[in-house]
Amino acid sequence: MGFTLPSEKSITYYLNIYPMKRRDFFKNGLLTTVGLSVLGSRPILANSHKSEKAKNIIFLVSDGMSSGTLNMTDILMRQKLGRASNWISLYESGTAKRALMDTASANSYVTDSAAAGSAWGGGHRVNNGSLNIGPEGEVHKPIFQKFKDEGKAVGCITSVQITHATPASFCVNQSSRNAMPRIAEDYLKLKFDVMMGGGKEFFDPSKRTDGRDLFLEFEQNGFQVVKDKAEMLLVSGTKPVIAVFSEDGLPYAIDRENNLELKNTIPSLAEMTKKGIEILNKSQNGFVMQVEGGKVDWAAHGNDATALLYDQVDFDEAVGVAIDFALKDGNTLVIITTDHGNSNPGIFNPGPKNIKFESVFESKASNQWLLSQMKIDTTTSQAIDMINHYQNVTLDNEEANLLLKSFFLGENGLYDYDKLPMEVYGKILSRHNAVSWAHSNHSADFVELAAFGPGSETLPGFLKNHELHNFMLEAAGVNRNEFVAV
Amino acid sequence: MGFTLPSEKSITYYLNIYPMKRRDFFKNGLLTTVGLSVLGSRPILANSHKSEKAKNIIFLVSDGMSSGTLNMTDILMRQKLGRASNWISLYESGTAKRALMDTASANSYVTDSAAAGSAWGGGHRVNNGSLNIGPEGEVHKPIFQKFKDEGKAVGCITSVQITHATPASFCVNQSSRNAMPRIAEDYLKLKFDVMMGGGKEFFDPSKRTDGRDLFLEFEQNGFQVVKDKAEMLLVSGTKPVIAVFSEDGLPYAIDRENNLELKNTIPSLAEMTKKGIEILNKSQNGFVMQVEGGKVDWAAHGNDATALLYDQVDFDEAVGVAIDFALKDGNTLVIITTDHGNSNPGIFNPGPKNIKFESVFESKASNQWLLSQMKIDTTTSQAIDMINHYQNVTLDNEEANLLLKSFFLGENGLYDYDKLPMEVYGKILSRHNAVSWAHSNHSADFVELAAFGPGSETLPGFLKNHELHNFMLEAAGVNRNEFVAV
Repeated sequence: MGFTLPSEKSITYYLNIYPMKRRDFFKNGLLTTVGLSVLGSRPILANSHKSEKAKNIIFLVSDGMSSGTLNMTDILMRQKLGRASNWISLYESGTAKRALMDTASANSYVTDSAAAGSAWGGGHRVNNGSLNIGPEGEVHKPIFQKFKDEGKAVGCITSVQITHATPASFCVNQSSRNAMPRIAEDYLKLKFDVMMGGGKEFFDPSKRTDGRDLFLEFEQNGFQVVKDKAEMLLVSGTKPVIAVFSEDGLPYAIDRENNLELKNTIPSLAEMTKKGIEILNKSQNGFVMQVEGGKVDWAAHGNDATALLYDQVDFDEAVGVAIDFALKDGNTLVIITTDHGNSNPGIFNPGPKNIKFESVFESKASNQWLLSQMKIDTTTSQAIDMINHYQNVTLDNEEANLLLKSFFLGENGLYDYDKLPMEVYGKILSRHNAVSWAHSNHSADFVELAAFGPGSETLPGFLKNHELHNFMLEAAGVNRNEFVAV
Repeated sequence: MGFTLPSEKSITYYLNIYPMKRRDFFKNGLLTTVGLSVLGSRPILANSHKSEKAKNIIFLVSDGMSSGTLNMTDILMRQKLGRASNWISLYESGTAKRALMDTASANSYVTDSAAAGSAWGGGHRVNNGSLNIGPEGEVHKPIFQKFKDEGKAVGCITSVQITHATPASFCVNQSSRNAMPRIAEDYLKLKFDVMMGGGKEFFDPSKRTDGRDLFLEFEQNGFQVVKDKAEMLLVSGTKPVIAVFSEDGLPYAIDRENNLELKNTIPSLAEMTKKGIEILNKSQNGFVMQVEGGKVDWAAHGNDATALLYDQVDFDEAVGVAIDFALKDGNTLVIITTDHGNSNPGIFNPGPKNIKFESVFESKASNQWLLSQMKIDTTTSQAIDMINHYQNVTLDNEEANLLLKSFFLGENGLYDYDKLPMEVYGKILSRHNAVSWAHSNHSADFVELAAFGPGSETLPGFLKNHELHNFMLEAAGVNRNEFVAV
C-alpha cells in the first residue's frame, strides 16, 4: 500500500511525479459521481416504506466513530462539496429515527470491536476480545446464522480484514478475535453469500502458518474468489462470493483516491456496497448485510485527521448507496451507527475564517502514508516540503525536527514503518489543522444510531448495544427463539 | 470560596478537620431528596401535554457540554445512584424528541457562549464575543424582550455570574460580552422577573470602577435583592427578584455539597430552578425561563473531571425539577441542550472492573478547590495524601512533584491561585481516573438537544442554533415579527 519514494531523489522529484498519480479526491474521484442523489436538500417522507416488517436489513457501522468524527465530516462535506453528509441529511430531512446507544461490554465501560459487535451479533454482552462467547463460555448463535436459517441471504463488507472483529461478530463464535486464520476457515464452512474486504494474509498459503491455500479451498467449496475491483464489478452472484483486495486492511480512502493504481484495483466502500446489494437482493426471502467503515477506527487510533475524515466520507457514500436502495425498495431497514467512540476528536481553535481546519480540505494523503514516505536521511526542510505539498500545512523547523526524531529505528538501522510516530505527528498537526484528540483509544461515549425504513418506528431514543440484536430480529419478523438477550 | 488550609499544620490535621465540613454529596446532599421522582424507570406517554401551544418555556443549558460529559455523568449516576440521569431517562422512556444542533457562530465553526446564546436569543448568528449585535452592527431584539412584550414573565438562573454571556444573550444587546458591569445596568432597566446567579463584583460599589451601588439601585427600582439561600427560599415573588449569591461564579456543586457553610448559603441549580418556577408561574400569561449550568463549561476548560461530572449532576437535577413541573402543568415546553462542546472528554482505558473511572464516585473535591489548598511549602507526600483523601487516587512521587513544580508563583513569592496548573493536573489525573481531554477549549461538535412538551413534536432531527429562536417563538404562538432568522 502507498508508494515507496527512492530516498536518493530530491523532494522536487516527488512533488513532480506524485501529483500525476495522486489525483484529486473530489475532482476525479468517486465522490462526485456516486452519492445520495435522492436526499440532497429536499425532504423525504418519513414513512416511505411499504411493509410493516423488513424484508432486508442493511447495517452500516463506522467503526470507532466519536461524535466529533461525524460532525467534522459533515462540516467538511458542506463546506467543500456544498452538501451535507448523507447521515446528517437523514436527520435534517426528518427521514430517520435517532437513538443514543450505550456501548459497554460485559467487563468494561469501554468496549472493543469484538465485544461491541457480539452484543449486536449474539444479543449478549461478552468480555472484550471475545466473539459471541460469554464470560462463562456461553455460546451465542450469531445473527447471520439465525437469518441464514430463515432463508435470507447474508453478507459482510468492510474496509479492513474480512476476518476482523466487526464482520466476524455477525458470523462466528471464537473466544478470541485474534484467531483470524480460524475465522477464515469458519467462513469456508458457513458459506455466506457475500464476504468482501481485506486480509489476504489469512487466506494465502505463503502467509498462513499451516500452509493451507484457503483461496483454493473456497473455490473448491463452490465460492467465486475475487481479488481486485475489476473482477468484483463482473461478479454475477450465481455462487457465494469471497472478495479479498489487500494484504491487511484496505488503503485509506484518501490514499486510494490519490493513487491511480490503488483506485483501479481497490473498490470504495460504496462500490462494494452497491455490488453486495446487487448480489444479495437476488434472494427471494430477502437479505441482511453488514457494511463496516473499519478504517475510521484505525485512523482514530492513529490520530490521523485526513485519513479519518475521508474514510468517514467514504463510509457516508456507502450510506448513500444503502439509502438509495432502501428508498426504491421500500422493504429495507437501514441502521447506521458505530460500535464505540475513539479518541474523541474535535475542531478546537480553528483560526480566523476557520483557515486551520480548512487546510484538511486540500490534504491529499493520510498521515500514515505520508510518514511512511520519510526516510532515515529525509532532512528537516524536505519533511516540511513534503508535508506542505501533501497536507497543505507548514510545519516550523522545531516541529519537523521533533517529528523526524520521533521515528523508531528498525533492526536494519532504518525507520521501522510498523511503528510510525502517529501520535506525535497528530499532536503537531493539531496546531495547524485544529483537530485535537483526547486519546488514541476507544472511549465509553454513548454513540449515535440512525434507523430508516420498516421497523425503525419502534426504535427507542436510548438503548444498550445488545438490545439491537432482538430489534433486528423483530424488525424482520424472525422469532427470537431461545437466544433472548438478558 | 473553599477553605484556606493553614500551611504550618500537618496533612493529618486537614484530614481530621475537613471531613467534618465536607460532607458526602449523595448521603446527606440534595441529590437523594430532590430529583425526578416521576420519570425513574417507568415510561411516560410521549404526548402528556394538554395544549398545542406552549404557555411556558423552560430552556436548560449545560454550558460547554461535550457528548462525553452527558455520557460519563449518566454512567456515574447509574452506577453510583442506581438511576439514570434525567436527561437520558427522557430518551429511554420515549418522552422527549432529540435533535443534533450545529453550534457555529458567524465567524467560526467554534462558537463562544455569547455568540451561541445570541443565536438562540436573537435569532441570528453573530461574531464570537457579541451579544445580539451582528457583524455589521445589526441589533437583534433579544427573545426575553419579545416574550416580555407578549406579557410573559421571564427569568434567568445560572451557576455563573448572572451577567455572564449565556443569561445575557436572552436579555440584552452588547457588542462585547465582557461589558458585565454594563449588563448589570441593563438588567436594572429591563426589570425582568427573576435573575439569579453569581457576580456580586458587578453590583457591589466597592468592586465597580464607577462606584455605583447597583444593589441599592435595584432595591430603589422596585426589586427584591437576595444574597443568600435562606433569603431566596423566603421570596414570595411580589416584586422582581435579583439574587446574587457569590462574588463571581458559584462554587462547584461538589465543593458546595462538601462544605456546610457553602451548602447553607448557596443554593443548588435545582433549588433556584424550583424557586424560579414558583415565582414565574404566578404570571397569568405564562413564563419563559433560562436555566444555565454554567460551571460545567468552567470545569471543562479546567479539565476538572470531578467538578465537571458533579456540576452536570447538579444540572441534571434542575432538569428533573423542570420536567416534574412540566408533567404536572401540561402547558410547558422544556428544551434541554448545550451551547457548544468543550474539551471532548471521555472515559479511556478505565482499568479492570472500571476501577479507575469509579474513583470519581468517591471524589470529594474539585481539582480547582484541591489545588487551591496547596501551599508553597506543601511537600510531595502531603500532596499525595491530600489528593488521596479528597479524590481517592494515589499519585506517585514523580506525578506529585511534577504537579507541585507546575504552580505559578505570584508577586509575593507564593503560589498564584489565579493560575492553577489545571491542565497539568488534569493530564496526571487522567492516568488514574481514566478521563482524558482533547483540549481545554470549545469544540465545533454538533450537540445534543432534547425537547419535551407542546411544540416539541415539530423539532427537526438536525438544526442550526439560530433556528431555535423562531422554534421557541412559534412553540409559544408568538409572532416572529420583523426578527426573522436568515
